[in-house]
Amino acid sequence: MTRQADEPAPFPGATGHRIVVVGASAAGLRCAARLKRLRPRWQVIVVEQREIFSDAACGLPYALSGDIDDPDDLRRTSWGALRDTAFFEEVKGLQMLTGWRAIALDPVSHELTVESGTTVKTLRWDELVLATGARPRNLSGVAAGPLVRTFHTRRDMRELKELLIHGKLEHVAIAGAGAVGCELAEAFRSLWDVDVTLIEAAPWPLPAIVDREVGALVAAELRRQGVTVLCNSPVRSVASRDAGVQIEAGDHTVNADIIVVATGVEPAVELAAAAGVAIGRSGAIAVDQNLATSAPHVWAAGDCAEVRHAVTGDPVHLPLGSLANRQGRVLANILAGVPDRFGPAAGVIAVKIFDLTVAATGCSATMAQKCGLNPKAIWLTAEDRAHYWPETDDIHIEIVFDPASRELLGVAAAGTGDVVKRIDVATQILLQRTTVDQLARLEHAYAPPFAPALDPLGVAAFVAQDCDEGVEPLSPLAPLDGYAVLDVREPSERRIHPLAGVDVMAIPFGELRGRLAELGGNRPWSVVCERGTRSAEAVRWLKTAGLAARYLGGGMIWRVAAGLGEHSHE
Amino acid sequence: MTRQADEPAPFPGATGHRIVVVGASAAGLRCAARLKRLRPRWQVIVVEQREIFSDAACGLPYALSGDIDDPDDLRRTSWGALRDTAFFEEVKGLQMLTGWRAIALDPVSHELTVESGTTVKTLRWDELVLATGARPRNLSGVAAGPLVRTFHTRRDMRELKELLIHGKLEHVAIAGAGAVGCELAEAFRSLWDVDVTLIEAAPWPLPAIVDREVGALVAAELRRQGVTVLCNSPVRSVASRDAGVQIEAGDHTVNADIIVVATGVEPAVELAAAAGVAIGRSGAIAVDQNLATSAPHVWAAGDCAEVRHAVTGDPVHLPLGSLANRQGRVLANILAGVPDRFGPAAGVIAVKIFDLTVAATGCSATMAQKCGLNPKAIWLTAEDRAHYWPETDDIHIEIVFDPASRELLGVAAAGTGDVVKRIDVATQILLQRTTVDQLARLEHAYAPPFAPALDPLGVAAFVAQDCDEGVEPLSPLAPLDGYAVLDVREPSERRIHPLAGVDVMAIPFGELRGRLAELGGNRPWSVVCERGTRSAEAVRWLKTAGLAARYLGGGMIWRVAAGLGEHSHE
Repeated sequence: MTRQADEPAPFPGATGHRIVVVGASAAGLRCAARLKRLRPRWQVIVVEQREIFSDAACGLPYALSGDIDDPDDLRRTSWGALRDTAFFEEVKGLQMLTGWRAIALDPVSHELTVESGTTVKTLRWDELVLATGARPRNLSGVAAGPLVRTFHTRRDMRELKELLIHGKLEHVAIAGAGAVGCELAEAFRSLWDVDVTLIEAAPWPLPAIVDREVGALVAAELRRQGVTVLCNSPVRSVASRDAGVQIEAGDHTVNADIIVVATGVEPAVELAAAAGVAIGRSGAIAVDQNLATSAPHVWAAGDCAEVRHAVTGDPVHLPLGSLANRQGRVLANILAGVPDRFGPAAGVIAVKIFDLTVAATGCSATMAQKCGLNPKAIWLTAEDRAHYWPETDDIHIEIVFDPASRELLGVAAAGTGDVVKRIDVATQILLQRTTVDQLARLEHAYAPPFAPALDPLGVAAFVAQDCDEGVEPLSPLAPLDGYAVLDVREPSERRIHPLAGVDVMAIPFGELRGRLAELGGNRPWSVVCERGTRSAEAVRWLKTAGLAARYLGGGMIWRVAAGLGEHSHE
Repeated sequence: MTRQADEPAPFPGATGHRIVVVGASAAGLRCAARLKRLRPRWQVIVVEQREIFSDAACGLPYALSGDIDDPDDLRRTSWGALRDTAFFEEVKGLQMLTGWRAIALDPVSHELTVESGTTVKTLRWDELVLATGARPRNLSGVAAGPLVRTFHTRRDMRELKELLIHGKLEHVAIAGAGAVGCELAEAFRSLWDVDVTLIEAAPWPLPAIVDREVGALVAAELRRQGVTVLCNSPVRSVASRDAGVQIEAGDHTVNADIIVVATGVEPAVELAAAAGVAIGRSGAIAVDQNLATSAPHVWAAGDCAEVRHAVTGDPVHLPLGSLANRQGRVLANILAGVPDRFGPAAGVIAVKIFDLTVAATGCSATMAQKCGLNPKAIWLTAEDRAHYWPETDDIHIEIVFDPASRELLGVAAAGTGDVVKRIDVATQILLQRTTVDQLARLEHAYAPPFAPALDPLGVAAFVAQDCDEGVEPLSPLAPLDGYAVLDVREPSERRIHPLAGVDVMAIPFGELRGRLAELGGNRPWSVVCERGTRSAEAVRWLKTAGLAARYLGGGMIWRVAAGLGEHSHE
């Protein structure tokens, strides 16, 4: 069965299992290298079609922007070694078949057919790891070409950077305001000062990650930085025009030099599918918690494999570098017989978009609804450090939960402050499949330079709990015209973030208890303050006085940061 | 029984329970204000001896340093309202008895005796909350006075600042290198340029929080900033001398203008103890998870009450503002009949010490040993963001675990990077009472500006797991002279952080697999690299080649940052 002559010579000392890994991606290389560390006498072969690989793909937007000078830094170790074929062979002890493409897999005969140019050969394996990754989606009906590009590889990045360096790009359209689309908008805009039009089919940016309220903060930040943001605008056609492209998207016509398609990635599963390995509903390779596929001795890890979502319990496609790296290690452990498993994931993600940090974990309300859950959201704006600390920044937090079971479903946050810490912390709590009440019991490291005495994340959980007592927020974006609006801010605050175009009764919080009698009328009250805390407390007093009231969740700071209100945040 | 005439008039509408809170501390006020929100018709009375209260005490070092200009900022709300008696009465609806000291408590007759000047009166209560806080410890046998001060109140801060402003302090001695002692060293030194001698009885700073390895980083940072640090130096005597003090501490004699005693706080429990309320072994008031004391209808919260430690299970005294604030809220919920409880705490804490951030959660190895556990520690130095990101900083991480049960016991970290995020995340995992293997499954938000693809905290858990495979670190501070030292760094790294005074064989990591035959000899090998990752991998190869080897945990960066090695970090 084995055709030794066709195969690379066994590595000196390789006497045990023979493992073949398809794909020198994060997952594949991590798995192969650890396996060789754990079982030095095993033979570990990596098949990779590209000659240059092991790029940290998440760094590519920053190589484009110029934040990272030398793109080779993306494939160096922290001590400066280039992670090329020689590195993985000499330093890590792997057998690298770079420039070889895997074209067929036979799970019964344990053979993998690979080709390079016109040469075809067959490798026998004891265990096979599919780490074939993902590839960028194209726009349906629009062919890729010099004017319609994707951004997934080092080559994609280099070609775009060449155009920028030579001043060939004055106006770039980007299709898709996901994480990569937003990062690209920043890359083109911040250093190269290119006009950018960001085109999104959904009603707000980052629609797969956050709800409308956080998405509005993203859109406003992009616009403040000079990016044209077109939401609700699916691309209908892209035509060549005047050495550039003309794009029809929603109600808009956009003329640009090129369009970069950043509408997400899809798992590369052809090899697996053709071999009869089960593909899940998400389109990625179905695996169990041992990362085993449906075929015995065939395993999958990284962007080609499914992950179980911690909140919905569904197998999903979560192409995240953090998960891929960890899966590589876990799979090496499993193959070496070291106890391990890859459990459900919250899908936590963070994106830097100019001066805004956005991060989310678990489900947005939008996603939860799609999955048949019954979510409720609350909002809070809070300072990220003790409010008297000289340098504090605001963070806007949304908590999504099931009001019946109290189950925590997701947390998202955005702001100029320390957002990621809160979302990383929320992830650990979310992964416990617990309630907002557990989140309210949050223990955190408090010192004025790092956090307030009650952390914003815990306070946001209090806000969720307050709903039980009838203290209910309105969305930060809610139209206020159906309400009698009560503004409990200080006069100075009202000047900074004015409430324009609505009739407002203004009573500072400190005077309100004594002036409740002034609040008559038939309309329900909407109480407004700066961050959504005073107004929530005021709602209690109004309710005690027999008045119907809600409050503006996240306060005027959120509303204004989202581009509502008379004046923008500038 | 009740003497209505002696009591404050009931608040309008107060018809239900009467709650008396002793102490307008974080816990007391938080409890009182929330209770009044939840149960607006109840009467909530706060008894407080001071006229000025509700200071954020954790901010006092920054008021002293000048980072915070106006000390009143420490008792303002985030919207600028001064939290004085009028605020709590008018805005929060509490009845404030400020300037009244609680002198006796009768849990049977439900009476509290209070005095102000020569006036004594008795309050009847339905539920009594003890929130009497803590007070600074004095040096045994040394009387407080103008030359021997503590730093606990706004008045303490103001008096010291007056002396600084008038140039009266050229040399300050601080007894106790705990969190407050270290913060004070920075406050005196950084803005006022005062000579500071920090005196600690234990062998390293922050001895109650971190082990020797992290403590050495703290000592080195303090010294780099010009602070004289005397460890192993219990204060034996303080004598007046030449308008200043002469301090005998360990083998040292220190002359200074004043000495500030920062040796910790002790719970203020006299009122409770005299009333027969049970005091725990820690010296604080014993409470259950409902914050109920041994006396029916008497409750305690904040720095006067015990907390159950999440790792040891013991009741301990953890005087932390974060816990006190949360206890206040929890107790209000419990008193109002809203389901809640105050569970075990990991005691997570963070301290800024000049440019170094230090944070820790759970047990140090030292503390675990004292509690009868059998801890093991590992160390790692890692970059806090993707290593190719233009701005990364190092963080040094120690993980403490039980090698038999694999139970995670504690995590500490220090560095110029994003330390607190990792410790806040570790806290959530630690509170689950789980293993290092669970920590290794860490899910985190990855994007190059925020974290590497594998987070340092998770990688540190890998380091702990590696011990199972015989890959064992030495302490970053370990003497290396008993070993044959193998330095696997690149020549450029060896120039930056040289290994002085030991015979070293230098073979760069990339060449090592081909040069293993050069490593003979009888002595065990100690492999050294920059951060403790390459050297750990090298240990596997040496072991495969039949050589005994360990590696320097945390690498040369840790060792040099701790002040070992020929050159300091400057």
